[in-house]
Amino acid sequence: MTRPIVGITMGDPASIGPEISLKAFQNKEIYEKCRPVLIGDSNVLEKVMEVLPGRRLKLNKIDNIKDAKFEYGIMDVYDMHEVDINKLEFGKVSKMAGNAAFQYVKKVIDLANNHDIDATVTNALNKEAMNLAGHHYAGHTEIYGKFTNTPNYTMMLAHGNLRVVHVSTHVSLRQACDLVKKTRVEKCIKLANKVCKDLGIEKPKVAVAGLNPHAGEDGLFGDEEIKEIRPAVEAMQQEGIDVEGPIPADTVFPKCVGGMYDIVVAMYHDQGHIPVKVIGFQYDEKKKKWNSVAGINVTLGLPIIRTSVDHGTAFDQVLKGTANEVSLENAIDYAIKLAENH
Amino acid sequence: MTRPIVGITMGDPASIGPEISLKAFQNKEIYEKCRPVLIGDSNVLEKVMEVLPGRRLKLNKIDNIKDAKFEYGIMDVYDMHEVDINKLEFGKVSKMAGNAAFQYVKKVIDLANNHDIDATVTNALNKEAMNLAGHHYAGHTEIYGKFTNTPNYTMMLAHGNLRVVHVSTHVSLRQACDLVKKTRVEKCIKLANKVCKDLGIEKPKVAVAGLNPHAGEDGLFGDEEIKEIRPAVEAMQQEGIDVEGPIPADTVFPKCVGGMYDIVVAMYHDQGHIPVKVIGFQYDEKKKKWNSVAGINVTLGLPIIRTSVDHGTAFDQVLKGTANEVSLENAIDYAIKLAENH
Repeated sequence: MTRPIVGITMGDPASIGPEISLKAFQNKEIYEKCRPVLIGDSNVLEKVMEVLPGRRLKLNKIDNIKDAKFEYGIMDVYDMHEVDINKLEFGKVSKMAGNAAFQYVKKVIDLANNHDIDATVTNALNKEAMNLAGHHYAGHTEIYGKFTNTPNYTMMLAHGNLRVVHVSTHVSLRQACDLVKKTRVEKCIKLANKVCKDLGIEKPKVAVAGLNPHAGEDGLFGDEEIKEIRPAVEAMQQEGIDVEGPIPADTVFPKCVGGMYDIVVAMYHDQGHIPVKVIGFQYDEKKKKWNSVAGINVTLGLPIIRTSVDHGTAFDQVLKGTANEVSLENAIDYAIKLAENH
Repeated sequence: MTRPIVGITMGDPASIGPEISLKAFQNKEIYEKCRPVLIGDSNVLEKVMEVLPGRRLKLNKIDNIKDAKFEYGIMDVYDMHEVDINKLEFGKVSKMAGNAAFQYVKKVIDLANNHDIDATVTNALNKEAMNLAGHHYAGHTEIYGKFTNTPNYTMMLAHGNLRVVHVSTHVSLRQACDLVKKTRVEKCIKLANKVCKDLGIEKPKVAVAGLNPHAGEDGLFGDEEIKEIRPAVEAMQQEGIDVEGPIPADTVFPKCVGGMYDIVVAMYHDQGHIPVKVIGFQYDEKKKKWNSVAGINVTLGLPIIRTSVDHGTAFDQVLKGTANEVSLENAIDYAIKLAENH
């Protein structure tokens, strides 16, 4: 099998994105599994390499994927010329950096839509900076929805054994309760089942969390389980999906971590985000920093592959040399697996 | 300091309670830190010791705490004579066992109310069995509320560094949203601060989670943070409590685990239960069992001390010798700490 071509955005130029991208491209294993290319600005990378000499790589600046070398030791950079390096302030929100980050995302989507690349991976952008630049999106996912003409998509988070698909994300908790509807839960069960197969899991076991404590305890605390979730689970079982639920949210996640299920359908943002981040994020109070921000984000339902880091721009850690690339490497790994089984 | 007297209920006689109690009483460290006494039925313990010979202890059957020996190797049992051992079916829900479990709880509360013991610890009871026996309570907490005449109490869960107090517990998620009110959040902040001091933490750092994703992102997804939670936090800061928030729920828990805070005020049941159980519970898919169900439960706001295991009756694991006593031992530890600083 040919190694898939993976386009990786540099993220906000003022963020830790350039540094962790250099770290990831210095990892030989990544070249053994895929052909990576960075979508960003070469002058920003050169500046970061000046400050962090341990991060030196040769750059191959291209404006066509055909010119990429895909050789370990040389970083292919699809050079976007969006940043005036003399004006860039690292660690700061700016219109210029916000626009650049947006343009990288738009470009990586174009490249995937045109089949120039097999999968896309995104570093973090800063929503405030992007908005300053006049690009009004809630985040990456909405940009992908728009530029791939996809009305229905959902967010998957993953860390190790734990994979979570969300019935809703960026809405209030009250609105999230309203969005727990049979058809919506069914769609998420289907997407959850499909992504597991795309990841090479032959017979996925899908779990569905309850909305209410104890999954409502037979209607005692809320009836969404009875009216919406259970009927959705039963309908999907009849379509041949190996799915169980609703299961109380406080036990379904440790069960999934332990291997009882391959994926969990969560009913709202925090229900899915809390367990993934509690496992993947490690904060060190003595050093006042995150030792690990593992865990990745995948947008399901798009015609192209998109995975992402599961952390933000971390402006407070820029150019210190301590930013952690594990989440980016995990996101690249996931993109490769999805591309191989696509 | 005299070692505190800790009364421990045996839990449902048909459950793993008797087995894990025997295991905990075989742990010498517990006797070094406290004077434990079991509230239960000696004939059930004798039966369990017959089946599990490794669990042999001498029993000192008493009906007055004054007769307890508190010697390692001898288990003091406040003998309740509630179980006809010939009729007891291990691993099954029954009226007799449900009534017995209830009577143990009622007795341990009486003993604490009368200052015969310094703290109480509960093993799991089965709600269905207790209801069959005509005792209609949602759980232990409500029994304690009733028999200590306490109208306002709240549930704390803890595992290691992570302590969580809940603004609401056994209500639907929609109702939980309605219960996020300034005065209620304030009460929980106060209880959180107090329990940390009772545990010997001199200057507790209290964190308050948001209700909505990203803590509402400045009102974009819900306004409870602006209208209720932030005002409560500010009021408590003015009273001198070191409290921060609202903080997005998906980052506040890993931060607390990492040591940035001593305790988190969670807005609803699953928000607090998910992180504690993801950390404390370890499921082993190969062996189809929980390797660990660590984590404990403390009722705050009562005039007496009550801690509890954080798992259920586990009827499917009874008399196999494999039930895990870690949660019970942790609950005893917590009760001791609270008694010492009371």
